[in-house]
Amino acid sequence: MNRQPPPHSDAVASTLKRWHQMLDARDLTDLPEIVHPDAVFRSPMAHTPYKSAMALCMALNTVIEVFEDFTYHRELATADGQSAVLEFSARVGDKQLKGIDLIRFNEEGLITEFEVMVRPMSALAALGEEMGQRVGAHLKGFR
Amino acid sequence: MNRQPPPHSDAVASTLKRWHQMLDARDLTDLPEIVHPDAVFRSPMAHTPYKSAMALCMALNTVIEVFEDFTYHRELATADGQSAVLEFSARVGDKQLKGIDLIRFNEEGLITEFEVMVRPMSALAALGEEMGQRVGAHLKGFR
Repeated sequence: MNRQPPPHSDAVASTLKRWHQMLDARDLTDLPEIVHPDAVFRSPMAHTPYKSAMALCMALNTVIEVFEDFTYHRELATADGQSAVLEFSARVGDKQLKGIDLIRFNEEGLITEFEVMVRPMSALAALGEEMGQRVGAHLKGFR
Repeated sequence: MNRQPPPHSDAVASTLKRWHQMLDARDLTDLPEIVHPDAVFRSPMAHTPYKSAMALCMALNTVIEVFEDFTYHRELATADGQSAVLEFSARVGDKQLKGIDLIRFNEEGLITEFEVMVRPMSALAALGEEMGQRVGAHLKGFR
């Protein structure tokens, strides 16, 4: 496992540190404090992004309920330090999966885009089914 | 678009430069020169990895035939410079998609792991169908 962080700006490093703390505690109550109000969530299932911090927080709160055995692995950054990739593994039911969070930050370190990709397809389908049952109808209002 | 590279080792930077040149020319003839013989390909569709440089080269040669309007965007690296993420967009038929190549290199800069993730699910399904028709039967022998 390589969680040694690449060189981010101090603001981005601080946001990522809080994100990891929230994930470790499985408590995203303070998530809105590190998300820009106009942030966008790009789901692994749907093409159309979900708009607003509220949509992003709702999606991420649900995802952490659905994922079991969630573990982060490598962390990567762009040269300008304003985007990060967090590699993870998890399980949905009996489906093992790999995935990444591709996150863009503004200059204050707030999250402005959060894009998730997952493989393989069978696990993505299982994740989509669980997410759809839990928040599908609510999230559609944020397109 | 941000293709300014993060700080890789010279060997990794050289490999990535050659990879981009091959992609720009849409000619992967020399790909085996930058791939370790025991490299592993992790497909966005299947859980089980495909083993050997030959399987990886076959998969990538087919993917570049299937993808239209292929464009790289952000490039990210781990702090140790031994892994990279290349963000891309492309199209399969009428399905727009986003994706990432998550690549691990050895100390000589050779590719040892190449993992691809794609969203959304409808585009992944379209990609899976095209790949299955073209190389599915051949690739299964490399599991």
